[in-house]
Amino acid sequence: MAQDPLPSWQDGALKSAILAFVDQVTDPNSSKYVVPNLRVATFDHDGTLFVEKPLNAQITFVKQKLFDEGDNPVMAPPNASFFDRLENKLANWMQDIESDLENISNAIFKDITPAQFRAAAGAWIRSAVHPRFQQIYQSLTYKPMLELLALLQDQQFIIYIVTGSSTDFIRQWSDETYNIGEQRILGSSLKTSLEEKDGKLKLVLEPIPFYFSNGANKVKSIERNIALQPIFAFGNSRGDIEMLRWAGQATTSFCGLVHHTDAEREYAYSPDPELFTGKSTLDQAQDYGWHVVDMKNDWLTVF
Amino acid sequence: MAQDPLPSWQDGALKSAILAFVDQVTDPNSSKYVVPNLRVATFDHDGTLFVEKPLNAQITFVKQKLFDEGDNPVMAPPNASFFDRLENKLANWMQDIESDLENISNAIFKDITPAQFRAAAGAWIRSAVHPRFQQIYQSLTYKPMLELLALLQDQQFIIYIVTGSSTDFIRQWSDETYNIGEQRILGSSLKTSLEEKDGKLKLVLEPIPFYFSNGANKVKSIERNIALQPIFAFGNSRGDIEMLRWAGQATTSFCGLVHHTDAEREYAYSPDPELFTGKSTLDQAQDYGWHVVDMKNDWLTVF
Repeated sequence: MAQDPLPSWQDGALKSAILAFVDQVTDPNSSKYVVPNLRVATFDHDGTLFVEKPLNAQITFVKQKLFDEGDNPVMAPPNASFFDRLENKLANWMQDIESDLENISNAIFKDITPAQFRAAAGAWIRSAVHPRFQQIYQSLTYKPMLELLALLQDQQFIIYIVTGSSTDFIRQWSDETYNIGEQRILGSSLKTSLEEKDGKLKLVLEPIPFYFSNGANKVKSIERNIALQPIFAFGNSRGDIEMLRWAGQATTSFCGLVHHTDAEREYAYSPDPELFTGKSTLDQAQDYGWHVVDMKNDWLTVF
Repeated sequence: MAQDPLPSWQDGALKSAILAFVDQVTDPNSSKYVVPNLRVATFDHDGTLFVEKPLNAQITFVKQKLFDEGDNPVMAPPNASFFDRLENKLANWMQDIESDLENISNAIFKDITPAQFRAAAGAWIRSAVHPRFQQIYQSLTYKPMLELLALLQDQQFIIYIVTGSSTDFIRQWSDETYNIGEQRILGSSLKTSLEEKDGKLKLVLEPIPFYFSNGANKVKSIERNIALQPIFAFGNSRGDIEMLRWAGQATTSFCGLVHHTDAEREYAYSPDPELFTGKSTLDQAQDYGWHVVDMKNDWLTVF
């Protein structure tokens, strides 16, 4: 390659490993060659491509919809500990908050269509300002990861975002931001209801979870929607372990984990330990041979 | 167009309507122009692209797996009326057969991976012989519909198959047969389970339905997976009514219904009446302005 496709990555072992992998799987003379339509790459979103602190973007969006829009919050505030628990990602938070979640979903999603939700999310991400960086959320994507996506796209990889956030939260701005279209977002979703109104069909969101895309469910979603094993995967948290292990079982693959080590330019935090074994995600990276991005040292630029 | 792109279609009003629609939405100077990445087309499978009599292909596959493979059927035959009910598509058959379905799924899908199921389906469709036509099932696609798919693909339409059959039943042979890849099949599916085995992850099918893609669920699946409204849709049965109405609500769209009127070359049967109103699918075609294919008169060749 004439030009460095990853200018925001520090020269070194990690960058070389990425470039070597891409060379191998795209070189028809290599024993590790993979034909273009099997070059599937899956990326987690929050914390992997996009800032997730001090609070995940979709939860921030929900919080603002509930409390900050004008003088009339759309509903009575939910149990005060709700957002604390979300922020701390306690072990069983999905179970704990189920009733809150239903209240909140009812308040925010009642009678709106998926297209309306997508439009609201798109408008928000393009205008809401991050409390620390004082930039709109949409701009808080990691520049090195955008370069990596572009490199893979140039090499005909088929890229999916596999995220715990709602598919419809990301769809409306993913193409413009990542060059990844709405059909390549595999996230969480709510049930929908098809209603008859004035002789027309109307599809509306229901405040009932349909799919929570995290952990093992990320693998199930990849299999259900893509039906091909990824050969390249990147994550940053406990919820990505199964996806990374899954990609790691391909004959040839590259698995990466973003480790947030940069309190100055972004944030410093480690992924939560694995739920049942208590093993840290970083330990697993070592066990399974995943490439760990040390944000502070490996990235010359963050945003 | 220099050459007739639909040589197996009888010249006349229907063929002209298809060609005129495609011209309009692809002509940048037309007021009905649609940009390529919004040209979404959705096709039902069984009875629309592919023969479905005397019995739907997937049900035939299941029946053969249960009874015909060697001297040892894999399980005791289910309730004798099971296949009769399936064949007759009785009103509430999904409820009626639930317990049989679990037995059958357990027998066929136990401990197999989705990839193994896809491989078995692909091998079957390429070798099993249709009882009347004495040809392999894979060859029993409707030639006029293959021409229509090719015409739309030439014009950069994004085509999905939206089917009541399992996604994984069709995926393995859809690219070769229809030039529609595995990620463009939206069908029914079973739940899956991610298991740990000898230090590796293994994804296996569970004999529990995850999604039944029929009627309103076809619209929900289109919205969840594509997030764009189809502008072209084709079906043949009651289970396609919602999908056709949905596409029909686009500003500009073309909706078609295959009516099987040709007992000599294929089969003659009408779609079942709509479940609650008792209204026939053909009445609905008239109400909503869908284009009805009279197979006997509109298709010069069937297969």
